[in-house]
Amino acid sequence: MKKWKRSGRLVDMTHFLKEHPHQLVSLSYFSDRYDSAKSSISEDLTIVKEVFEEQGIGSLLTVAGASGGVKYIPKIQGAEAAELVQNICEKLEDKERLLPGGYLYMMDILGKPQLMKEIGRLFATVFAGQKIDSVMTVAMKGIPLAYAIASHLNVPVSVVRRDHRVTEGSMVSINYVSGSAKRIQTMSLARRSLQEGARVLIVDDFMKAGGTARGMMDLLSEFKAEVVGIGVLVEAEDVEERLVDDYVSIARLADVNNQQKQVKAEPGNIMNKLKMEE
Amino acid sequence: MKKWKRSGRLVDMTHFLKEHPHQLVSLSYFSDRYDSAKSSISEDLTIVKEVFEEQGIGSLLTVAGASGGVKYIPKIQGAEAAELVQNICEKLEDKERLLPGGYLYMMDILGKPQLMKEIGRLFATVFAGQKIDSVMTVAMKGIPLAYAIASHLNVPVSVVRRDHRVTEGSMVSINYVSGSAKRIQTMSLARRSLQEGARVLIVDDFMKAGGTARGMMDLLSEFKAEVVGIGVLVEAEDVEERLVDDYVSIARLADVNNQQKQVKAEPGNIMNKLKMEE
Repeated sequence: MKKWKRSGRLVDMTHFLKEHPHQLVSLSYFSDRYDSAKSSISEDLTIVKEVFEEQGIGSLLTVAGASGGVKYIPKIQGAEAAELVQNICEKLEDKERLLPGGYLYMMDILGKPQLMKEIGRLFATVFAGQKIDSVMTVAMKGIPLAYAIASHLNVPVSVVRRDHRVTEGSMVSINYVSGSAKRIQTMSLARRSLQEGARVLIVDDFMKAGGTARGMMDLLSEFKAEVVGIGVLVEAEDVEERLVDDYVSIARLADVNNQQKQVKAEPGNIMNKLKMEE
Repeated sequence: MKKWKRSGRLVDMTHFLKEHPHQLVSLSYFSDRYDSAKSSISEDLTIVKEVFEEQGIGSLLTVAGASGGVKYIPKIQGAEAAELVQNICEKLEDKERLLPGGYLYMMDILGKPQLMKEIGRLFATVFAGQKIDSVMTVAMKGIPLAYAIASHLNVPVSVVRRDHRVTEGSMVSINYVSGSAKRIQTMSLARRSLQEGARVLIVDDFMKAGGTARGMMDLLSEFKAEVVGIGVLVEAEDVEERLVDDYVSIARLADVNNQQKQVKAEPGNIMNKLKMEE
């Protein structure tokens, strides 16, 4: 059996904790894993905790008692968060993404797994203090963000569909009015995809009037599930009547002008939510 | 400025390398980051490398010379890979997932980000030695796996769609024959979603005759892109005529019997590919 030294333990422990966010790991587990005394493990964890907190990697919660241990909570620091939000705003202002009809091409942003991971960590920071059982999104552009957030929270993802596929089994469907186009549409979720009574975080890439988010909330009530929050990457400007009022956004479009080929974006409300969390 | 000790550097370095897979990081970068001599950084990296390799976290390549540095390649070890593949097979054999028509419900597997990450690491191990610019999949069930793999390879994802949305800009479309149903269908990819000449890994959750994979290959040739490989989570049993022959699969359905409520799954060919890679 390998004889572990502190230096080796620190490397492996950092890896292990990062792979198991929001999960309570007992001191005994580490003590067995490294064949080391609990007092040494405690000292290791103090070092990990210090670096995680100083470097803005996240926090390491210590739970005392017989069933105690440590829990790694991925977080992002204020300055790094502000930079990330600014970076997204600048990307959004690239006029090359303007499409006919005032739509914005977003797949270059959504298509970058590392960027999604960072944004996921930002959302995971804001919702770190809440009990969340599942992240829910609607196919397809919300999926990358939903998985990035769920991965940091260590919970499963439920994907709502606008069509009905044979591979989903029995589904629960609702009709909803898309807020901006005022069209009646259908969305469905596989019955076995969500536990009754689950506490759910709703995620999407874009929100205009919030009809889709409202629809997901209605769908959740069919599952007797609870909405913990709503997170969107980008919210639209100039919305007359929003159908949801409590949501967290990374960026807000301030002005989209197709004739002048100009997009203006500003930080969403996430920075305020982050401050409240701190 | 913080005075870094070896113990702290090891924690932060492990975090940093895990966040930047397949990316060359110079010794100078670490030397500046930790305000430490390159000789100390080299010793740190030797410790990290040893633990990463012994624990099956991945390998740490050292590139010598002025533009040299280190590169972390996420990998999975043979024994852990075999266990993961076995675990997927057992999950697939759960008869509760049988749906009318012999379809299998898979969203419980695909909906788990941590499980997807592990499978992503397995695929990333098999394709670690090849130059890959992008991972491509088709909406929507291939998306979680595609992001998991792309995240380990540190490349973007291109998502092919079966519909045409205004938010994609100009798209390149092709018709393809779905192998099993012999129906003509259309798939499209946003023109700006993939660079001409890119080297692409094709990913999907399920493959029967391979019509969809074949379609993606045809679509790639429209972009003058090159297919580096094809990875699927599950391949179907009893396929008379496969439209692609070079692919990597995690599991293979050996028998799906709706009357007897029975599913048999066996490891796909990935374990052989993994051995070849080693």
